[in-house]
Amino acid sequence: MVYIKLDRNSKESLTKQVYRHIKHMILNNKLKADEKLPSSRKLASELNISRIVVVDAYENLLAEGYTYAIKGSGHYINKNLTLERPQLPAPQVDFSEFEQEHIEISFKSRIPALDMFPKAKWLKCYREALYDSESTSFGYSYPSGQKSLRKTLADHLYKKRGIKCHEDQIIITSGSVQGLSLLSQYFKTCDGKVILEDPFNYTIRDMFEKNETIYQAIDKFGLDPDNFPKDTKISGIIMTPSHQYPMGTASPISRRIELIKYARQHDCLIVEDDYDSAFRYDNSPVESLHELDPERVIYLDSFSKVMMPSLRIGYMVLPTHMIEPIYKLKRISDITSPILNQLTMDRFIQYGYLDQHIQKMKSVYKRRRHHLIGLLNHYFTDQVTIHGVSAGIHIVAEFEGLVFDNQLIKSIEGDGVYIMRLSDNTEYPDKYKSHLILGYGNLTEGQLDKGIKILHKHLNKLN
Amino acid sequence: MVYIKLDRNSKESLTKQVYRHIKHMILNNKLKADEKLPSSRKLASELNISRIVVVDAYENLLAEGYTYAIKGSGHYINKNLTLERPQLPAPQVDFSEFEQEHIEISFKSRIPALDMFPKAKWLKCYREALYDSESTSFGYSYPSGQKSLRKTLADHLYKKRGIKCHEDQIIITSGSVQGLSLLSQYFKTCDGKVILEDPFNYTIRDMFEKNETIYQAIDKFGLDPDNFPKDTKISGIIMTPSHQYPMGTASPISRRIELIKYARQHDCLIVEDDYDSAFRYDNSPVESLHELDPERVIYLDSFSKVMMPSLRIGYMVLPTHMIEPIYKLKRISDITSPILNQLTMDRFIQYGYLDQHIQKMKSVYKRRRHHLIGLLNHYFTDQVTIHGVSAGIHIVAEFEGLVFDNQLIKSIEGDGVYIMRLSDNTEYPDKYKSHLILGYGNLTEGQLDKGIKILHKHLNKLN
Repeated sequence: MVYIKLDRNSKESLTKQVYRHIKHMILNNKLKADEKLPSSRKLASELNISRIVVVDAYENLLAEGYTYAIKGSGHYINKNLTLERPQLPAPQVDFSEFEQEHIEISFKSRIPALDMFPKAKWLKCYREALYDSESTSFGYSYPSGQKSLRKTLADHLYKKRGIKCHEDQIIITSGSVQGLSLLSQYFKTCDGKVILEDPFNYTIRDMFEKNETIYQAIDKFGLDPDNFPKDTKISGIIMTPSHQYPMGTASPISRRIELIKYARQHDCLIVEDDYDSAFRYDNSPVESLHELDPERVIYLDSFSKVMMPSLRIGYMVLPTHMIEPIYKLKRISDITSPILNQLTMDRFIQYGYLDQHIQKMKSVYKRRRHHLIGLLNHYFTDQVTIHGVSAGIHIVAEFEGLVFDNQLIKSIEGDGVYIMRLSDNTEYPDKYKSHLILGYGNLTEGQLDKGIKILHKHLNKLN
Repeated sequence: MVYIKLDRNSKESLTKQVYRHIKHMILNNKLKADEKLPSSRKLASELNISRIVVVDAYENLLAEGYTYAIKGSGHYINKNLTLERPQLPAPQVDFSEFEQEHIEISFKSRIPALDMFPKAKWLKCYREALYDSESTSFGYSYPSGQKSLRKTLADHLYKKRGIKCHEDQIIITSGSVQGLSLLSQYFKTCDGKVILEDPFNYTIRDMFEKNETIYQAIDKFGLDPDNFPKDTKISGIIMTPSHQYPMGTASPISRRIELIKYARQHDCLIVEDDYDSAFRYDNSPVESLHELDPERVIYLDSFSKVMMPSLRIGYMVLPTHMIEPIYKLKRISDITSPILNQLTMDRFIQYGYLDQHIQKMKSVYKRRRHHLIGLLNHYFTDQVTIHGVSAGIHIVAEFEGLVFDNQLIKSIEGDGVYIMRLSDNTEYPDKYKSHLILGYGNLTEGQLDKGIKILHKHLNKLN
């Protein structure tokens, strides 16, 4: 006897309910092998439903192999279909890093002004990309990304950063993080270790095994090849020469030349992560390391800072011998980055919107930076030191004699202010225990006022 | 003497040109260490340009460390700035796979009808996602993807595929390829080998080292655990149980239960790649393997077939113990998938547009499938065998006695028709030398007519 309790208010169709109940009974051995199901007419009448409902449910069971049919006789349960059901544990994952409803003012670094994203211009470009592109563009395509965007980028990079490259040397990635991730896979196949700057961006650190890397402390000009280990083969150097993350140092040309010479002597590659080069507030755009030796330097950047991180569009300029291996790694990572986004970005650059937006944001960020430094000097006077050159969307502030321990961070968070310790981004936490990384890109002057006031209230208590 | 040839018609500013020329002379040792630059006044007059142009160029050179300034005296070249320029090779990469201008009719598999993408509905959802979302959504977010989309998907999967899961078990990926790529990295950390179906999708094969995998030939019900090697530890099985790619077999419930029992006995995981389950033309949607044991099965799918591949949106449903490790792998791969696309897809599903589109496409593809099979039977009569159940957007056709060698493929391509050999997707090419994978999703009935006629012309010559 098949007992089925139907729920006539359920969103689930009656056919689906009948099917699911019978299946459940089979899997749980309530209906045994070779047992005959009631005729569809009989079951329909018992359940007071239309016969077609039962016929459809029976057909599904048959098609999936739960039953076999004997012509003129009916449906029978197949053999060996009993399966004990497992207990399901509840998922327990710590997502707290992203669930910050209690945070009113976040000094998280690397976040641009999200509310100033040029929505109308972007949407215009997106609409055009959607309606004006050949539909063949919407299948699978080049792992290296859309040719039109790569061409536009090659022009753009030449004009803005003095970078000379062919469009086939460019690979579009899902943010610069994917570029670095592909490179970390590439370096695993090389003979030698990879040098990372210290302090560093911990996302990059996490891409490498500890035994594959050397953390090299920077000085006031960034990485110094004179300090590199003499007895270890180095295959790559990953660095941020124009605005070191997080310290904000800029490597002058003499240091850059030493780095290139080191790379040539030791046959290694340099990865130039140019993550916020668009924003410099002193009078000069420092040129790229890439132009000094395009066959030794991998240039890497993204639109995360100049547009917004959630677009996940980045790119690399590769030495010619790396095009094929990186291309293959990208293909087995995700085939290619989303294409409509690439076609949109292509138009966005070609229409001059990118330049306009950068120009506008540069003056916004310059003001915010100036305001933040003014506030810090006002509240903390000679107890605070600001590190790094005038660029980007974050600063490093060192508070003399203070230690940012968990309890302090927590109590500041309790007042709705999120701050980042530099000590979480280094192998030498003691050296940087008094340093904060303060992102200001996404904070208005009013928010900066409030945030620094709250920070002062907490730090003041400690003195 | 500084000789600079200016191009007044160049897009490059005069300041940039002056700066670049002097820099070039320094790097190439034409201006030596401690040599003094002419005064800005003098150079401006020589070049017949405004003095401010030269002043700006000099400031850039100073800021970048090419020169040093002595107050009241002028600008001098810094030491050690000579750098020999490297020769640049031209990039030579074979992109021919994606440059198919000569192909008029492509039987490439896994491509849906790209010209039927519901542009207006998608754009409506995109606009809403852009304008109605909190701007805080546009920074960095959960590596697992937008919570709203994960919730919507959890509902959708329950209704469509009988999958019960919590939204935190879902991770949004850039297509199912990224999901498989993350899993391949996960399996590298496990003790044991991974079983792949043979024939397979070569993109998946390429994610694994040869010594990490076992290619297991399928039979008419897919993978048979009775044939798995007895003396090798297996950590994972990657399979397409509802519609094997490419052969099109469907595993009945008895085989599914055997697979689950195998996985339990040998403590291994099953990856259920459900790549085209939305399209079944017989009367039943075969249920997922996942529902039989959600803690042993990773369910994986994408919107590439039901929407279009270029969106690059896929997802996985993970057993609870895998959430954290996969979450970490995703974070260091690309942080998160593009967010606006996720917010758009969320609305697209919630408004019922996805269901409508699938419904519509199902009848389109069913017609195309029927038409293609009709054509094959018409032209090749009893020389052709169609493999697989009635589902998806491709078929496998076996042409008795024929061998698809390179020359044959090339001559068919010469007539504008692209076909895929099954033998490129197997470790046993001899077994499948007479088989073609024919994708019909993106071909109209007229194109199918023309394509199969051309195919027949070429194959007929051989008999």
